[in-house]
Amino acid sequence: MASERNTRIVLASRPEGAPTPADFRIEHAPLPTPRNGQVLLRNRWLSLDPYMRGRMNAGRSYAAPVELGEVMDGGTVSEVVQSLHPAWSPGDLVLAHAGWQTHAVVDGESLRRKLDPAGLPVQTALGVHGMPGFTAYAGLREIGKPQHGETVVVAAASGPVGATVGQIAKLQGARVVGIAGGPDKVSHVRDDLGFDVALDHRADDFAGRLAAACPDGIDVYFENVGGAVFDAVLPLLNDFARIPVCGLVAHYNDTAPRNGPDRVPQLMSLILTRHLTVRGFIQRDFIALYPEFVREMGQWLREGRIRYREDVVEGLVHAPEAFIGMLTGGNFGKLLVKIGD
Amino acid sequence: MASERNTRIVLASRPEGAPTPADFRIEHAPLPTPRNGQVLLRNRWLSLDPYMRGRMNAGRSYAAPVELGEVMDGGTVSEVVQSLHPAWSPGDLVLAHAGWQTHAVVDGESLRRKLDPAGLPVQTALGVHGMPGFTAYAGLREIGKPQHGETVVVAAASGPVGATVGQIAKLQGARVVGIAGGPDKVSHVRDDLGFDVALDHRADDFAGRLAAACPDGIDVYFENVGGAVFDAVLPLLNDFARIPVCGLVAHYNDTAPRNGPDRVPQLMSLILTRHLTVRGFIQRDFIALYPEFVREMGQWLREGRIRYREDVVEGLVHAPEAFIGMLTGGNFGKLLVKIGD
Repeated sequence: MASERNTRIVLASRPEGAPTPADFRIEHAPLPTPRNGQVLLRNRWLSLDPYMRGRMNAGRSYAAPVELGEVMDGGTVSEVVQSLHPAWSPGDLVLAHAGWQTHAVVDGESLRRKLDPAGLPVQTALGVHGMPGFTAYAGLREIGKPQHGETVVVAAASGPVGATVGQIAKLQGARVVGIAGGPDKVSHVRDDLGFDVALDHRADDFAGRLAAACPDGIDVYFENVGGAVFDAVLPLLNDFARIPVCGLVAHYNDTAPRNGPDRVPQLMSLILTRHLTVRGFIQRDFIALYPEFVREMGQWLREGRIRYREDVVEGLVHAPEAFIGMLTGGNFGKLLVKIGD
Repeated sequence: MASERNTRIVLASRPEGAPTPADFRIEHAPLPTPRNGQVLLRNRWLSLDPYMRGRMNAGRSYAAPVELGEVMDGGTVSEVVQSLHPAWSPGDLVLAHAGWQTHAVVDGESLRRKLDPAGLPVQTALGVHGMPGFTAYAGLREIGKPQHGETVVVAAASGPVGATVGQIAKLQGARVVGIAGGPDKVSHVRDDLGFDVALDHRADDFAGRLAAACPDGIDVYFENVGGAVFDAVLPLLNDFARIPVCGLVAHYNDTAPRNGPDRVPQLMSLILTRHLTVRGFIQRDFIALYPEFVREMGQWLREGRIRYREDVVEGLVHAPEAFIGMLTGGNFGKLLVKIGD
């Protein structure tokens, strides 16, 4: 172990618009040493998620930005190599937030939960059974609140949040329309995930197709994309529709305001006259529900009532290109980096 | 009574932009005759409210538009002249929705409540103790939810909704910043209504003054105006701020989209990253709270804990000009038409 080194990917520069590989830098360093209360982790799986784009900016977002030269942050499934914390032992597999690197020293208190290697595949703790799945679960339960027979629309429906939103809404008796990019994703959403309708946002006359797919209007639009999909949804919203907003990936690379006219007054008028609820959130806002989510989603997964798809990239060095591609829909399912054994 | 006629104001044409007197027409007609279950009313007070502008348009709004040639609708305090309904007797003073006219026949079931001429001034049932007051009460209680020490900002603060919002929020321990147009309204809001700060939106550097008045940011923005005030509020909103949206009077006369850039993506990004809740409503959405409102507000009024100001126009024929002026802030307090004895 003493001969091992830490390989890490740091933020080299702040992107203007879409990130490029040059915005990241690979570094090698000696293994860090834990102090009292800390653990040394070897990261097995790294989660790549759209929110990370926000952390690359200097501006205010959910959380403090990653500083230049700092390791990109991100959720991991990690193995405890050395522990100076009483709750953890070498060999434990844990859900951590140890970033884009092969090893990390973190406070034992910061570890989120221990994973059972004999249970669900451990990397699901980064996807359907972790942050993206919990985003879907909490956003529906606390904001979307789909009722039996209502119409729920979700974009990025083959991604880990959208796929889970649609399947939970189906379990709750809603009619679910999913939107994805390209025929393979559309087939997956309809045939594997069981959505009532799946639509390709790249199709000609997408807005017309969405309207045809929602003859009774839209009661819940789970917003994780923005852009043209949001524009097509707006005229279809029913009175008292709910819009949980957990992401706007279509805008993360925007560098300048979009051309006018300014539609803010129309949006506010629609919110008023249709009694809409538009609410931004991240899953952490509803953390009190997390234990219940872990239990209930675990059961749904073991029973095969919720399905998921993973897009696995082998090797940490490929993380930047995979992340860059994800921002324009290049992934197909939950994007994970397998860091190695 | 048989010699009396009904005088009524009907919608003559649909306005393009700001209404003009020519969009209204005064008509005289024989008194209508009630059938079984109905009552004949003589209207004493007519409420003029911004929502009526929406009813003048053909498009979808809260409710069906007023048709051309139909009486403009509106809340009234009315006296029962003749009753063919067992619940009502001649001489009763009632809260009704009998429109811009001196008399009306309505279903007895449609009457909202009986008013006590020995209690609060009966016309308060159209203002602070009626629809506008209930809008303030319900929007704060169900959406705004101000907590002790939080900062609440409200525009049109000398109007019947804004004045009540601010005073209720003060009773609940919030710090309240009111925005009004012109020095008289600003003084009233600060000195008579007891807001912590009152600002003139016409002042130079209004946005800077608002920022200075909200050193801890804004937790609740009660939106009943839109436009430049909303723009100044946005950058000051705290994480988890709530925006009840009950009106957008600055936009009711808009005829064309505002010049770009399109700020919808920025607004949605703000909703996301600051965990905002933006929710449109009308008071009817929370009608289950109405009895409690009538009781609690009645007590606050009798105890002098909530104050109100009325702007009374004498004579139904002056309703159109008063209404037109209200849409650009020409009223000072709850705008009422005293129809006569």
